[in-house]
Amino acid sequence: MTKFVYAFSEGSRDMKKLLGGKGSNLAEMVKIGLPVPPGFTVSTEACRTYDEQGQKLTEEIKTELAEAVRRLEKDTGKRIGDTKSPLFVSVRSGAVFSMPGMMDTVLNLGMNDDTARALAEQTGEPRFALDSYRRFLQMFGDVVLGVETERFERELERFRAQRGYTSDPELTADDWKTVISVYKKLIEHHTGSPFPQDPNVQLQLSVEAVFQSWNNERAAVYRRMHGIPHSLGTAVTVQSMVFGNLGDTSGTGVAFTRNPSNGKKELYGEYLINAQGEDVVAGIRTPQPIRTLHEAMPDVYDSFVRVTDKLEHHYRDMQDIEFTIEDGTLYILQTRNGKRTSQAALQIAVDMVEEGVLTKEEALLRVDADQLHQLLHRRISGDNNLQALAKGLPASPGAASGRMVFSADEAESWAEAGEKVILVRPETTPDDIHGIISAEAVLTTRGGMTSHAAVVARGMGKTCICGCEAADVDIKAETMTIDGTMLKKGDVLTLDGGTGEVFSGSLQMEEPEMSPTFQLLLGWADSTRRMNVRANADNGADAAKAVEFGAEGIGLCRTEHMFMDPARIPVVRRMILADSKRKREEALAELLPMQRQDFEEIFEAMEGRPVTIRLLDPPLHEFLPDKEELLIEVTTLELTGDAPEKLAEKKQLLDAVKHLEEANPMLGHRGCRLGMTHPEIYAMQAEAIFLAAGQVHAKPEIMVPLVSHVNELKAVKAVIEREAERVQRETGVHVDYTIGTMIEVPRAALTAAAIAEEADFFSFGTNDLTQTTFGFSRDDAEGKFLRQYVDQETLEYNPFVRLDEEGVGRLVEIGAHDGRSVKPELKLGICGEHGGNAKSIHFCETKQLDYVSCSPFRVPAARLAAAQAAIMHQAEKEVQPS
Amino acid sequence: MTKFVYAFSEGSRDMKKLLGGKGSNLAEMVKIGLPVPPGFTVSTEACRTYDEQGQKLTEEIKTELAEAVRRLEKDTGKRIGDTKSPLFVSVRSGAVFSMPGMMDTVLNLGMNDDTARALAEQTGEPRFALDSYRRFLQMFGDVVLGVETERFERELERFRAQRGYTSDPELTADDWKTVISVYKKLIEHHTGSPFPQDPNVQLQLSVEAVFQSWNNERAAVYRRMHGIPHSLGTAVTVQSMVFGNLGDTSGTGVAFTRNPSNGKKELYGEYLINAQGEDVVAGIRTPQPIRTLHEAMPDVYDSFVRVTDKLEHHYRDMQDIEFTIEDGTLYILQTRNGKRTSQAALQIAVDMVEEGVLTKEEALLRVDADQLHQLLHRRISGDNNLQALAKGLPASPGAASGRMVFSADEAESWAEAGEKVILVRPETTPDDIHGIISAEAVLTTRGGMTSHAAVVARGMGKTCICGCEAADVDIKAETMTIDGTMLKKGDVLTLDGGTGEVFSGSLQMEEPEMSPTFQLLLGWADSTRRMNVRANADNGADAAKAVEFGAEGIGLCRTEHMFMDPARIPVVRRMILADSKRKREEALAELLPMQRQDFEEIFEAMEGRPVTIRLLDPPLHEFLPDKEELLIEVTTLELTGDAPEKLAEKKQLLDAVKHLEEANPMLGHRGCRLGMTHPEIYAMQAEAIFLAAGQVHAKPEIMVPLVSHVNELKAVKAVIEREAERVQRETGVHVDYTIGTMIEVPRAALTAAAIAEEADFFSFGTNDLTQTTFGFSRDDAEGKFLRQYVDQETLEYNPFVRLDEEGVGRLVEIGAHDGRSVKPELKLGICGEHGGNAKSIHFCETKQLDYVSCSPFRVPAARLAAAQAAIMHQAEKEVQPS
Repeated sequence: MTKFVYAFSEGSRDMKKLLGGKGSNLAEMVKIGLPVPPGFTVSTEACRTYDEQGQKLTEEIKTELAEAVRRLEKDTGKRIGDTKSPLFVSVRSGAVFSMPGMMDTVLNLGMNDDTARALAEQTGEPRFALDSYRRFLQMFGDVVLGVETERFERELERFRAQRGYTSDPELTADDWKTVISVYKKLIEHHTGSPFPQDPNVQLQLSVEAVFQSWNNERAAVYRRMHGIPHSLGTAVTVQSMVFGNLGDTSGTGVAFTRNPSNGKKELYGEYLINAQGEDVVAGIRTPQPIRTLHEAMPDVYDSFVRVTDKLEHHYRDMQDIEFTIEDGTLYILQTRNGKRTSQAALQIAVDMVEEGVLTKEEALLRVDADQLHQLLHRRISGDNNLQALAKGLPASPGAASGRMVFSADEAESWAEAGEKVILVRPETTPDDIHGIISAEAVLTTRGGMTSHAAVVARGMGKTCICGCEAADVDIKAETMTIDGTMLKKGDVLTLDGGTGEVFSGSLQMEEPEMSPTFQLLLGWADSTRRMNVRANADNGADAAKAVEFGAEGIGLCRTEHMFMDPARIPVVRRMILADSKRKREEALAELLPMQRQDFEEIFEAMEGRPVTIRLLDPPLHEFLPDKEELLIEVTTLELTGDAPEKLAEKKQLLDAVKHLEEANPMLGHRGCRLGMTHPEIYAMQAEAIFLAAGQVHAKPEIMVPLVSHVNELKAVKAVIEREAERVQRETGVHVDYTIGTMIEVPRAALTAAAIAEEADFFSFGTNDLTQTTFGFSRDDAEGKFLRQYVDQETLEYNPFVRLDEEGVGRLVEIGAHDGRSVKPELKLGICGEHGGNAKSIHFCETKQLDYVSCSPFRVPAARLAAAQAAIMHQAEKEVQPS
Repeated sequence: MTKFVYAFSEGSRDMKKLLGGKGSNLAEMVKIGLPVPPGFTVSTEACRTYDEQGQKLTEEIKTELAEAVRRLEKDTGKRIGDTKSPLFVSVRSGAVFSMPGMMDTVLNLGMNDDTARALAEQTGEPRFALDSYRRFLQMFGDVVLGVETERFERELERFRAQRGYTSDPELTADDWKTVISVYKKLIEHHTGSPFPQDPNVQLQLSVEAVFQSWNNERAAVYRRMHGIPHSLGTAVTVQSMVFGNLGDTSGTGVAFTRNPSNGKKELYGEYLINAQGEDVVAGIRTPQPIRTLHEAMPDVYDSFVRVTDKLEHHYRDMQDIEFTIEDGTLYILQTRNGKRTSQAALQIAVDMVEEGVLTKEEALLRVDADQLHQLLHRRISGDNNLQALAKGLPASPGAASGRMVFSADEAESWAEAGEKVILVRPETTPDDIHGIISAEAVLTTRGGMTSHAAVVARGMGKTCICGCEAADVDIKAETMTIDGTMLKKGDVLTLDGGTGEVFSGSLQMEEPEMSPTFQLLLGWADSTRRMNVRANADNGADAAKAVEFGAEGIGLCRTEHMFMDPARIPVVRRMILADSKRKREEALAELLPMQRQDFEEIFEAMEGRPVTIRLLDPPLHEFLPDKEELLIEVTTLELTGDAPEKLAEKKQLLDAVKHLEEANPMLGHRGCRLGMTHPEIYAMQAEAIFLAAGQVHAKPEIMVPLVSHVNELKAVKAVIEREAERVQRETGVHVDYTIGTMIEVPRAALTAAAIAEEADFFSFGTNDLTQTTFGFSRDDAEGKFLRQYVDQETLEYNPFVRLDEEGVGRLVEIGAHDGRSVKPELKLGICGEHGGNAKSIHFCETKQLDYVSCSPFRVPAARLAAAQAAIMHQAEKEVQPS
């Protein structure tokens, strides 16, 4: 015969499917001998039976329930409904996976006119007893009988108004009596029956209410959304109540077994004497730090310390514990793994290895890699409960304070005068580079995570917030208005590039550190992971930083940022605007020694580690001034007739901008398409690479961007190889090099077999691949609909942050598989921003990529995530042998 | 023992692999008893042996070659090198697939000092004999001995200059003798050996030269590009020469067995008495029509008629024949299937079925579907050898003449005054619609095949050329300058929308027709094809035209063109600019009856056939005015301070335009993303559809655009279903409807299994799918790099014209397969422009799609192409049973 009801002592944590999360946890604590208020769990099997029987409790269930109550009465020495020593219980729903939208909790079940009186007598606190009774009426009325809690609140308000009270503590015991009778009438009026005084009836109704809540609309939607099978059902946990407010030998509190802020091994928490849990939460009385319990109740403290040790050893993790002391007896109500800061997570994981509690592999899995990089950026100190002025996109992490300026020139001059400045612009262009260099941080009101400002700031490791649309910037007036508040030039702002928050004034900062504990953990990660970790770096300084953070190479060296350098942009523009091949080649010849110098610095910083250099990728118009501004200038000059020469010059520039303008630059004339129509640009870059590599004895990996057809790669490869031959012949220095391609449009992945024939390596450019696979322009999507998509769970997560496994991931899989099918030794990596995201790194491990590449600051996190991925993938393979 | 050399009489057309195309064709003609000058073929096997032996002719080959020459001498009664009756031969390369880049032809082989003299005596034409000799020296020198033909030409020029001649006919026999000795010296000087006088040596060297040319760089590149295996090798065909210039009983000519222009069954061609083939080509003498041969040489004419009958019956197709008459004897030199116009192809195919030569299926395969739509548009008459002023993109087919105007207003007023006008603009916006309506055709200098002008013109069936970048339009001056020629307002232009050519002045036009022959063929196609053919149509008039052309439904009814209507655009703009939900809903309420009317007209025209309606797709800013113009207006108004109210209004509009502006609109806030953030728009459209469908008893298929994740479809579906329920409840009329989606971004295809759960049908939107799969913005690509890609064969074909099977096609295959795997009854169609392209339709047949949909004018071609695809796919399946 099926068993439907289990005493806590009959269960364990392995019985989660039958007893739910809550029931099995309580059972586990009982099993290891902790002082848990006794109780029992009605199983999920009972829930299924209830459903099958047309939403009716069978006689078997009712019988078992009654027996369980009797056993509980025996264990506690109290009796339900008893007028001497009444037993009160809590009733809680407990699904296998925690699920909002279901009935949660009914406390103090067993309350009725008689037991309330008995509790008053027993405790000598009639007011407490009556307050508990009316709370029960309200809770039971709401969640079991369907009388909304607002109705009770309204009655209570009306009563307070009649008496002229402003708060609940003013109500006397007699007042609560009156309220109780009003509540009972309310229930009778709404349900058509009197409030059930019989505690057994109360219990039965509560159990049914939990089962019914499993079927309510909100819970059903949640299950559908999270793929939780309806057939799981929910359990119901019934537990005897203990009271922390029975006098000075009672109390209640919460504690962590270690410091959740820094990870130090010390009890951390607080408690209140003569109080219930909700008093701690309400914050009316100030709780005591947990260590003072040592003096207040030494025995209880000692047993609490023993309990915490036991819990940590049993659960092998730092615990967050709720406890109550009833008349000198300690009860543990709940324990769970405690939340902690990144710093604490790190410390606890490493300490627990030293304590022999965890293996190194387990410790590695305990630290959230995605949080880790926080430790490497300057951040706003303390628990930040400050109200932000506005929120934009967190385009480049870190935090910075400074005075607002609205032009790049002013940023430069103020910075030269020793001021710290924040450059505020609607958006930035290559003309603003000197301002970005001079500023502490950049704030733009337009553009997304891949806008000019974002890309340049990330490249420089500077804090940046983009697309802050709530801010209205008036460049002429030099003001920024947010929600009616106007800030002007020189006002101080603080930006949090990690969250996208903009604050008024200057905030306290914390400097980053890479502690010995951090280093130790990363050392373990390095000896565990299979994948290499490289960095995306575009200059010598970034490359050096990447090496410092443990990068094993450069996975993506973008060459366009080199072109954006303010000293070079005039030459670059001359190259673009050249009206003859000769003029273009002259400009390119000027750029050659600069590019060569760039590459030498990078190769030197990397000391022989592999460096993947991507040839010029963006459309040429990105190097030209903004069209709108030019248009206004030209129109103005035409009307005023002031400066005909300037007009002619600006007109020419405007024509060029219009000529190069594109409807969809993301899908336009860029990447290798540029290399196909202007082979001389790639030839110059290749020459610079080979000259630099010959000088420094580096082994460059040259990467051709945006290939969609193998013939593009063939053609560009021919240009590179010709330069390689020529430079080697002329210098007499042999250079080892390879040529590969980005896989960043779907067609490249879909035709990977053909492309692999011509490539030494593939690097999955998952930023662009995500844009083309979804058909999302990142710049447009983030501000206009993507946030709503994530908020409303149309998409489970932002695919620009975490690799979309179903769609983009399928292309990565096809590309990797088809590429290796024709060339098993093909080197495979990923260099989108996903290369620094833990879940995406795990995906790369499952597809057996050779390396991930991410921004230098993400490298430590990626080292850890790669180790975690290796451990988990190994475990998955052991479970499901392929 | 392997046989290397085959007399024509030993071969047949089945031996193409061994004898090459040329050799097997000549053998076939001999086999059916045609008068072919005798000869033999050295096989491809000999070529392979030659290669294997280190590029040497083996003794076996040499022996067989000598034997074949002896047999040929016997057959012709002439002897090679003979001083009485010398035999001359041609030597030609003949690969299995015709291949440029290989040695082509050496004529008159066998010429030397002695045989030239013999020929002079035999014919009594010493000048002819010597000219033939020097031609041979030049040809043999060039292609066999590697002395470039330019060197010979230069010597000849020098000689002419010495003698003061200006053309070759001035040279006497003695002059040619001098030239011959110069040529022989040139050869000796360059090759180090004297010109080989021995005809057998000449022949052997020629055969070797053909074999070597198989390995030359150009031929190798061509083979790699077209996937022709190197191992095939080439054959060499040696044929005795016949001369058409031996007097008035000789001659030469070319003829078609039917009229290649209209398909009529009559001999069509021309000939010259006493002439060689090259005289016909040179065009110095005017040839006679073939029918006059009847009087000139009645016997020859009769035997020619007999030969043509035999050829047509044997090859079962209209033939293009080269013939020579040597001294009253007819020789057929070559026959091949004749090229023909679409009209002729149609007529011939239908006639040949009636003549019992072809089956209907064969006839269907004989007509090029991609050419067929030419018959349905007005076109410029005759063989158009006119020089176009400029060439743009053929954005909408047809041809039109009219006077140039540069504004929509002027187009309207001129048209009202009875003028035919061509609207010329840099690009068009919704503000120009009334001008497009009034104009005969539209010409723009910017924008691609999907620009506003292109889409609107195609929708209206109006001729349009876009992106004509060679034309410099000055709107203010009202001039258009092309290559230095300035045209002004009122000048007459003719546009050919089928080719993109712009002509000055008015040209003669031919009106389209859908002849009974055409109808007959399409009837056969309809009873042969498996796939349905639908049309893309956005209004009642187009729908009616679609039905007239045989469309079986509408596969794509775009709803945005309805919004572009000039009467509606102010309401649409009010809807977009609404600053509250109420105002937006007011505007939508105004649009509702208009949309309802649109749908009623379409449903009525389609008379119960299925209609797939796509909900609003483009980004909202497409309905707003052009930003550049607004910016200039605002700047001007600000400077002049003239009209503050107008300034305020324009500024507001500019703000809205800027707010809605996107970096990459193609990948931006459009399609169902708009439906997600503005559900009220889709709700209005759904309401209009259900009201109209209820009225007309239609069964609408509602299509959700740009889905990338199934959750988008779910959410939009909920909105549609809510409206369906409401409208049906309120009107009391039941409407049968289905809901499906476009598959137009890669992610939709990659997650088709999930999406199919929610969809009744998929329509592959291959225009956008091509853009996102390649990462090509069509508007940008066509002008900037795609032409170069196609010209230089980086891409085999333009993927916007013919579906890219490797990349985009793989996604279509994945989408179709995965979708059907969860829902076998899922209806699958294609509605991109590829739906009208024959090769793409064939691809759809292989993937077993249910229908293709294309523009109304393409429907007849699609019906034919679908029939061809069904026939071919069936044949393929029979060859390779799956």
